[in-house]
Amino acid sequence: MPEPKIFRIIDKIVFDYSLIEDGDKILIGASGGKDSTVLIEYFAKRKKQNRDNFEFLALYVESGLGEVFNEELKAMIESWDVKIQTVNANVITRLKPNKKMNCWWCTTQRRTELKNYAVKNGFNKIALGHHLDDVLETLLMNALQKGELSTMTPKFKYEKYPVTIIRPLSLVDEKTIIAHAKENGYKNMTCTCTYQNNSSRKEARCRLQNLTDDNYKQKRRLFDALKNIKTEYLP
Amino acid sequence: MPEPKIFRIIDKIVFDYSLIEDGDKILIGASGGKDSTVLIEYFAKRKKQNRDNFEFLALYVESGLGEVFNEELKAMIESWDVKIQTVNANVITRLKPNKKMNCWWCTTQRRTELKNYAVKNGFNKIALGHHLDDVLETLLMNALQKGELSTMTPKFKYEKYPVTIIRPLSLVDEKTIIAHAKENGYKNMTCTCTYQNNSSRKEARCRLQNLTDDNYKQKRRLFDALKNIKTEYLP
Repeated sequence: MPEPKIFRIIDKIVFDYSLIEDGDKILIGASGGKDSTVLIEYFAKRKKQNRDNFEFLALYVESGLGEVFNEELKAMIESWDVKIQTVNANVITRLKPNKKMNCWWCTTQRRTELKNYAVKNGFNKIALGHHLDDVLETLLMNALQKGELSTMTPKFKYEKYPVTIIRPLSLVDEKTIIAHAKENGYKNMTCTCTYQNNSSRKEARCRLQNLTDDNYKQKRRLFDALKNIKTEYLP
Repeated sequence: MPEPKIFRIIDKIVFDYSLIEDGDKILIGASGGKDSTVLIEYFAKRKKQNRDNFEFLALYVESGLGEVFNEELKAMIESWDVKIQTVNANVITRLKPNKKMNCWWCTTQRRTELKNYAVKNGFNKIALGHHLDDVLETLLMNALQKGELSTMTPKFKYEKYPVTIIRPLSLVDEKTIIAHAKENGYKNMTCTCTYQNNSSRKEARCRLQNLTDDNYKQKRRLFDALKNIKTEYLP
């Protein structure tokens, strides 16, 4: 059976940006959602191919808001010979007085937990499930709200910590992930917290779809443009 | 009477990019449209203010497709103490066999005529009427069609010719120009040729409006983002 197309797209960026290198110890941020599950499936498959010398672990950072990792999903991931580790970020108890919970803050807390776990346990890379739409939405938000050309990169080295963030799904659009998740019977586990209100990202999603006709080729060209900056033709 | 806001926006970019410098001989590309007419009005006003030492001439490059510069508009421009020079680009007779006329080709021919006139007559700058929407539409077209981050710049030095292109309307959006044209009774002179079909730009215009809610602040932030490129946060 040939590799699914989604894995060939991931292969490309792993190669282009050397996302997996000899001796890597990679911590995958597992959220229970489709994106990080694709990531786990890819790493599990790649590990079995014995193409490279690396280790990985999937870490589920509970928010402490009451959500539980879907049992069927867990069983499926274990059928790939992957164990899911769990830590609790207790985002509620960390909240300072008079501060409101929000998606951004919760994400930041869980990211910190992930980073601390990596540093403490000798992981040199953290793999996150951000995909092409996330990358381009962030680009639009940063440009239109901050007047800044920037976004999340496929490979980002923390300055203060001996850890590099990698985003192997940077070239994969969400539609392809959804199709793969359906075909392979991924069980859904959506964020159950009652604090969700990320209108800014929803707006950016809408702008991105209008901008690119929600078309993969156009999104890829927009991504490519970020690597092909002609400064002499910019103000 | 205070300066109209549009002239203060132009003042800013003229200052930021040194678009008018001591001893400049500037050729304005006059099309008969609202954009280049604003440009002429600005230069005429600025000349009278005696702020800087420069000369300018407005040159109308006829396409040879039968259009005539609107007489009322000409009279209005002459009331600003500006003379309009005319040359003919004869774009039809230059067309090679089997080639179809189109907006891009006609524009290129007229631009060449403008450039030749400047070189022959000792003009060191050519001022063009491209505005903020033009600049951002070109940005989107180049990104989505060519996978390249580039657009028209406020100041661009030709490599092969002793001429610099300047675009003093780069920070002015089209709505502001239209409002100014109405308030000041500019007579319309639209392109009368029958070859117009610039669907690619029309599409980009639509994308830009969706992207920015056709809002000036958002457009300005998008423009600013092009001057604020964080390469470490780009792929």
